[in-house]
Amino acid sequence: MDIELQLTVENLLARYVHALDGDRLEDWPGFFVENGCYRITTADNHERGLPLPVLFADSRAMLRDRVSALRHASVYEAQRYRHAVTSTLVERQDAGTARAVSHFQVLRTMQTGETTLYACGRYLDRIRLAGDGGRPQFEEKIVVCDSRRFDTLLAIPL
Amino acid sequence: MDIELQLTVENLLARYVHALDGDRLEDWPGFFVENGCYRITTADNHERGLPLPVLFADSRAMLRDRVSALRHASVYEAQRYRHAVTSTLVERQDAGTARAVSHFQVLRTMQTGETTLYACGRYLDRIRLAGDGGRPQFEEKIVVCDSRRFDTLLAIPL
Amino acid sequence: MDIELQLTVENLLARYVHALDGDRLEDWPGFFVENGCYRITTADNHERGLPLPVLFADSRAMLRDRVSALRHASVYEAQRYRHAVTSTLVERQDAGTARAVSHFQVLRTMQTGETTLYACGRYLDRIRLAGDGGRPQFEEKIVVCDSRRFDTLLAIPL
Repeated sequence: MDIELQLTVENLLARYVHALDGDRLEDWPGFFVENGCYRITTADNHERGLPLPVLFADSRAMLRDRVSALRHASVYEAQRYRHAVTSTLVERQDAGTARAVSHFQVLRTMQTGETTLYACGRYLDRIRLAGDGGRPQFEEKIVVCDSRRFDTLLAIPL
Repeated sequence: MDIELQLTVENLLARYVHALDGDRLEDWPGFFVENGCYRITTADNHERGLPLPVLFADSRAMLRDRVSALRHASVYEAQRYRHAVTSTLVERQDAGTARAVSHFQVLRTMQTGETTLYACGRYLDRIRLAGDGGRPQFEEKIVVCDSRRFDTLLAIPL
Repeated sequence: MDIELQLTVENLLARYVHALDGDRLEDWPGFFVENGCYRITTADNHERGLPLPVLFADSRAMLRDRVSALRHASVYEAQRYRHAVTSTLVERQDAGTARAVSHFQVLRTMQTGETTLYACGRYLDRIRLAGDGGRPQFEEKIVVCDSRRFDTLLAIPL
């Protein structure tokens, strides 16, 4: 078991969700390599191999556009999100890359004070271990949501 | 603090819940030693020492029977489960065995897309560190549920 | 990355929530140094720098008083709590101190068997690594709740 690899990946995932939940959206693209791939999909579609993501981006530029859109719409700040990432399984793919799969859930607290479960599912990640500045970054992050309901899921990064 | 032991146990628990949530039920008995013990009980009964488990098995054969029954009833596939295991405390018992206690929760997503909290509580595990093929396996797993409601809990492994 | 520091802090947090959820409230003050600071606040107030905690204590004696009050009121035993602490980021501050920030959530199970989400948010901790008996203890623990609703939150430690 590669202890350092395990904790490096857990640390990346922790910093990622702290950035999102701390409303530091502008930091979000920096968690990906320049041509990083980000996709939100449903478990149903993922299992059937359907290429119909809820959200898709294949570069940091697209992620930055997404952040601009969210800031412009001001939807993100209206509520608070709280991620929990657990049960991360890591596998080294080659000298510079690892794959990780984790469980996640997101709670959302409205301005009224009410908190509900917003989403849950799995993160399927391919990670470049020495990305910009030697820090690990996502080459690919696929967010597979357990639910197929997406009325509000379109709004925010997971 | 035994770092390797801690991460070995966390890895076992992570693989266990990935198997369950990934509907790989046939892999479930393999997480136990041949005469492994599995029990689901309530916190109330556990504290009072009442020997009334909701579910009980003391061999892999019984776990396999359970899987067959679930597959036959086709209840398991009808919805998705998502475990979160956290706060795992590990203690070495002897050279070959460790004890672990963890918090868990399980979310359930129905085919309608609705997600609700299904169960939460504690895992009380006794683990053989070098089981079949040198991999760690459960000698005993006691699932202590916080709630005493069990209308649906009977159906699936936790 | 300091692996031992990371796991030491995660272990402290795990023991802390196991004590609370196991109704071992009398152990709670012992997780703090003698003049340890404990505060529950809301994200709104925390961000605005408002000095209006929901709960405040700056010594173990005050925490002990709190436990006595809870035991006297017998509110704590009436239901079960289940914490999940995740995504812990640790930073060494100096030779003897570390800072940690984590996500947390608490589920509450009533005697009727119903479980609901009770609170979620962040733990902001300053930890003395070699406290009493050489064990780590909290010098300061700030519990920042995402919700600003506090009808019931006043009752129990988080």
